[in-house]
Amino acid sequence: MKIWQISSFGIDNLELVDRPTPQPGRGQVLINVHAASLNYRDLMIVLGKYNPKLALPRIPCSDGAGEVMAVGEGVTRVKVGDRVAGIFMQNWMDGPPTAAKQRGALGGDIDGVLAESVVLDQNGVVAVPDHLSWEEAATLPCAALTAWNAVVRAGRVKAGDTVVIQGTGGVSIFALQFAKLLGARVVGTSGHDEKLKRAAKLGLDASLNYEVSPEWAKWVIEQTGGVGADLVVEVGGAGTFMQSLRAVRVGGTIAQIGVLSEASEHLDIRPILHKQPNLQGIYVGSRSDFEEMNKAIHQHRLQPVIDEVFTFDNTKEALRKMETGSHFGKLVIRVS
Amino acid sequence: MKIWQISSFGIDNLELVDRPTPQPGRGQVLINVHAASLNYRDLMIVLGKYNPKLALPRIPCSDGAGEVMAVGEGVTRVKVGDRVAGIFMQNWMDGPPTAAKQRGALGGDIDGVLAESVVLDQNGVVAVPDHLSWEEAATLPCAALTAWNAVVRAGRVKAGDTVVIQGTGGVSIFALQFAKLLGARVVGTSGHDEKLKRAAKLGLDASLNYEVSPEWAKWVIEQTGGVGADLVVEVGGAGTFMQSLRAVRVGGTIAQIGVLSEASEHLDIRPILHKQPNLQGIYVGSRSDFEEMNKAIHQHRLQPVIDEVFTFDNTKEALRKMETGSHFGKLVIRVS
Amino acid sequence: MKIWQISSFGIDNLELVDRPTPQPGRGQVLINVHAASLNYRDLMIVLGKYNPKLALPRIPCSDGAGEVMAVGEGVTRVKVGDRVAGIFMQNWMDGPPTAAKQRGALGGDIDGVLAESVVLDQNGVVAVPDHLSWEEAATLPCAALTAWNAVVRAGRVKAGDTVVIQGTGGVSIFALQFAKLLGARVVGTSGHDEKLKRAAKLGLDASLNYEVSPEWAKWVIEQTGGVGADLVVEVGGAGTFMQSLRAVRVGGTIAQIGVLSEASEHLDIRPILHKQPNLQGIYVGSRSDFEEMNKAIHQHRLQPVIDEVFTFDNTKEALRKMETGSHFGKLVIRVS
Amino acid sequence: MKIWQISSFGIDNLELVDRPTPQPGRGQVLINVHAASLNYRDLMIVLGKYNPKLALPRIPCSDGAGEVMAVGEGVTRVKVGDRVAGIFMQNWMDGPPTAAKQRGALGGDIDGVLAESVVLDQNGVVAVPDHLSWEEAATLPCAALTAWNAVVRAGRVKAGDTVVIQGTGGVSIFALQFAKLLGARVVGTSGHDEKLKRAAKLGLDASLNYEVSPEWAKWVIEQTGGVGADLVVEVGGAGTFMQSLRAVRVGGTIAQIGVLSEASEHLDIRPILHKQPNLQGIYVGSRSDFEEMNKAIHQHRLQPVIDEVFTFDNTKEALRKMETGSHFGKLVIRVS
Repeated sequence: MKIWQISSFGIDNLELVDRPTPQPGRGQVLINVHAASLNYRDLMIVLGKYNPKLALPRIPCSDGAGEVMAVGEGVTRVKVGDRVAGIFMQNWMDGPPTAAKQRGALGGDIDGVLAESVVLDQNGVVAVPDHLSWEEAATLPCAALTAWNAVVRAGRVKAGDTVVIQGTGGVSIFALQFAKLLGARVVGTSGHDEKLKRAAKLGLDASLNYEVSPEWAKWVIEQTGGVGADLVVEVGGAGTFMQSLRAVRVGGTIAQIGVLSEASEHLDIRPILHKQPNLQGIYVGSRSDFEEMNKAIHQHRLQPVIDEVFTFDNTKEALRKMETGSHFGKLVIRVS
Repeated sequence: MKIWQISSFGIDNLELVDRPTPQPGRGQVLINVHAASLNYRDLMIVLGKYNPKLALPRIPCSDGAGEVMAVGEGVTRVKVGDRVAGIFMQNWMDGPPTAAKQRGALGGDIDGVLAESVVLDQNGVVAVPDHLSWEEAATLPCAALTAWNAVVRAGRVKAGDTVVIQGTGGVSIFALQFAKLLGARVVGTSGHDEKLKRAAKLGLDASLNYEVSPEWAKWVIEQTGGVGADLVVEVGGAGTFMQSLRAVRVGGTIAQIGVLSEASEHLDIRPILHKQPNLQGIYVGSRSDFEEMNKAIHQHRLQPVIDEVFTFDNTKEALRKMETGSHFGKLVIRVS
Repeated sequence: MKIWQISSFGIDNLELVDRPTPQPGRGQVLINVHAASLNYRDLMIVLGKYNPKLALPRIPCSDGAGEVMAVGEGVTRVKVGDRVAGIFMQNWMDGPPTAAKQRGALGGDIDGVLAESVVLDQNGVVAVPDHLSWEEAATLPCAALTAWNAVVRAGRVKAGDTVVIQGTGGVSIFALQFAKLLGARVVGTSGHDEKLKRAAKLGLDASLNYEVSPEWAKWVIEQTGGVGADLVVEVGGAGTFMQSLRAVRVGGTIAQIGVLSEASEHLDIRPILHKQPNLQGIYVGSRSDFEEMNKAIHQHRLQPVIDEVFTFDNTKEALRKMETGSHFGKLVIRVS
Repeated sequence: MKIWQISSFGIDNLELVDRPTPQPGRGQVLINVHAASLNYRDLMIVLGKYNPKLALPRIPCSDGAGEVMAVGEGVTRVKVGDRVAGIFMQNWMDGPPTAAKQRGALGGDIDGVLAESVVLDQNGVVAVPDHLSWEEAATLPCAALTAWNAVVRAGRVKAGDTVVIQGTGGVSIFALQFAKLLGARVVGTSGHDEKLKRAAKLGLDASLNYEVSPEWAKWVIEQTGGVGADLVVEVGGAGTFMQSLRAVRVGGTIAQIGVLSEASEHLDIRPILHKQPNLQGIYVGSRSDFEEMNKAIHQHRLQPVIDEVFTFDNTKEALRKMETGSHFGKLVIRVS
């Protein structure tokens, strides 16, 4: 089978190589990967900025979906022919996070899914909703689940609430879609009017071009009758954090999900904490969260938003587009 | 001004009498009541079944909406011309319930709103959403808020959840509407096919006629792939409680809101508690909950469902229709 | 090895037989059981009242502690020599309960621990605190964890709260101990003054003999300045439930853990639900809860209260003492 | 009566002047202030660093306790002779914070308690526990309640948890005391060995001199078996925040209460948010929280820790001691 591997850091150094197709051991499943999707983390890993000490070679990419081709002895959770996606952290099944559960993330601690076939533990996969294509299903493990947990776990969003999204990347667009499912009002920012128009079609209730109005917190306050937002889904781009603290209402929530920016920021959070916000770090989620999210996606026949689908051979182009940050929704690679 | 009063128990004994229009004292507001809505509690009170020791005469009815006509000294929360509704418990502003907060319910502990004018403390009213008629606004204080707290506070309902409603009374229909706003799947029961059809138009996803199939819990289990419902909004009709315990999933929630049935029931809840349900008694809610609900109603331009509007003179007919239980949504009395 | 088995229901029909010592398969551990403790459920199972359709023969008893003697291939969580206890439900690792997690309870769905040796999955055991004897460690899996979850999960007990316990059985005494660790005031009832005196030595702040004063709810109200208890740990003895509803404060919690009574009760819970209690069914808990509890037990060097230790041969006497309900704390069987 | 007032900023500019004793209006109470306690905020306000635009003259100090000398018309919550303390924010009665509730803080938005007599709304006071002296009661409104909400609301601390406190100021010492009441293990840092010894007598389980070992986060990790703390009560001194993020466990909580440091800090919180901490801003609390805390203080006869009591005349010395940061527990001023 063909795989992409990081032999040394840098997009140009990614190698497409042949490896023997692995066989599932006891409790494992062999998955024919049909599609993978990119997250900003994948780019950072390929560039060596996420973990400069990463053991190489490493197969990148955490998010993929495919068909179960074979199962090892003792496998009961899935069967041949099932449509599944791997879960981001292979050890986080349920309950709140722990250090142990956070170990074993695909495409980082262990090999990822940018391969024609992967072998995972039967506990490390979930069934994907029937109505989704392989490309759509591949967008769920990291971006969608992060957005779900930002909106549902951290924000406990409900009808009548106002949610702020930042930009139009994968997590932000999923957060928009989920917040709308839950009945909230969603307002958002971008540097591009055409992207805001596209987001409006997905339900964005009001929008601001931050190139025109960089002090968007003030606009959020206006949009909420002077009160501030109930939830800000903070994706961590440069300079957003202080604005998020200004934009959130007294007693509101900031879901901090981001690794979007490389630059360190100078923050003075103390005076603003008089607003008594709840700042919740979100790092994807558990398998149980994933299954819960899938129930909502299935019920509403929610369609993940894909910016562009690349062939397996064009993986480097996909990463370069991620690098430009010009996408709207998800970048997907068709694997096989 | 004209008022209805309970001089002795029984619908027939209700009296329409004249009283001097009250004047607002310090911190109080005078409201011209335009509409009132009925709850089952109002009927029970009139019949003497809710509190046989009620001090008489008493103006019945907790739920009304009207216009502020005058304000007393020191009033800052509202002004003349505001459209307001009284809150059910005049002392429950915020936070969790206490015995003290639960005292002072309109139309019970103190005089209610079945009067052309009422005087309330400025803290005992909330602004009603602009898009609602007086009749619609009058449905909110008790039925809507009970349903809101059943669905939002007790059930924490979200997209992907399944909610069960029972019958098509005021609380059940509001619970349906709110659960749909929050993205849930809602299934329900009634003894009348035509009511279920009407509920389907409001979003009910699946329904069962319990006259045909009294063991509806089994149907709920089937409707949820063998799992059971995330939330049952239990309105307390005869025989429903044991069914609700069977219908809820392991770890699910039953919001017990009901005083619909007069008959005591023989329950054996212990074995079924092995399902580890959360059973939450809901008794309307706070002013803060009311304001939160109004944000959702306003955002979604939600239309309360009114079965029939009666004239002030026909108040007894309204109570008799409540007695038959044949209504769908709310019974409203046009006051002035 | 020797085991006790239910070949047909009834204490007299319990059989002490020889079976070959099992060997741990992949992912399994062999445990030399040193002590087991009894719960009311064990008695009900032996009598055939818990599940009349139980597949026989069955080794009874869920709660035991012992030493790991051998581990199968792939075992990483425990090693030979570890002091462990089995978890009650072998599939409930973490997070909220589900039907699937609730399957596989020791001494019920599957064979229990009344055996000189047992083989369990490595995921189905937890390390026990160092300071506990085998007999003490054996009391934890069911009774202690049920009490922990009643007090910590359901009741969120804190300093300043008042907790009610009922009687002096295993769960109630653990609830007393845990509630005191958390700084609460604990009041309790019993039919025996000497037991109440003994409980007072464990920290019980006030007590009532319900043989003398059956209407103990009124006493609880008095003990709490007219407010009612924050938490009632309801163990389900005859007639307690209605009293618990009367004893709890507005907005308080009842943790319903009991299977103590065989008799069905006639309940009319609806009017009392106007107090808006939270009634939470508790059925033991997860492995993660167990580990969390063990941290508290370890920190405080908490000593489980053992009523009497029986030899393995005298298992039937232990069950007969359970039947009389005369114990204070836990009944333990020394196995090997 | 005599009062201290800020006529222009600076400790030296504080003026001791005479004002007519105020009289309680409708719904108000006149309190003879017996003692006041200092918080860091009071110093910042006097120095003009908290709010440079503060309307002057202003009576400083939020925390005081005294006896009700007279009540205005319509007062029902308190009576002459009651021992009371003012609540920090005069409008925050109950429930979660809002901007409106956060307005009206004593000694900031409105005049404070550094006066022989004050008039407050009857809703703006709480009864203080009987066993406390006036000096002790005066320590509760701000420091104790902040610590209570950090430990109880934000941290939901329970037996088995590890809590980190920083230094030995008023909030930190109360956090230590409350966390011990709740059964937690508490570890802490200070720059002075003798203060750590004194804290040990109050229950501090382990301590570190940060002058000797500035990287105290590593020590916390060691103290918790490599896991990290469940709760860090972050008081906002220079450089502590990044250490707190390193010291907290995956999924743990940081209660950010501090305004202790004037210097802005350069933070890069994003990578560390992969630990998924919950960062909760705490700004004192509601009257309902205060009453709840008082129940715990009363039950345990908890003794607030007072560093030094100053005479009313020596108020400037008290502020200067606050400035040095050399105190252990609370600085109190005996007023009358």
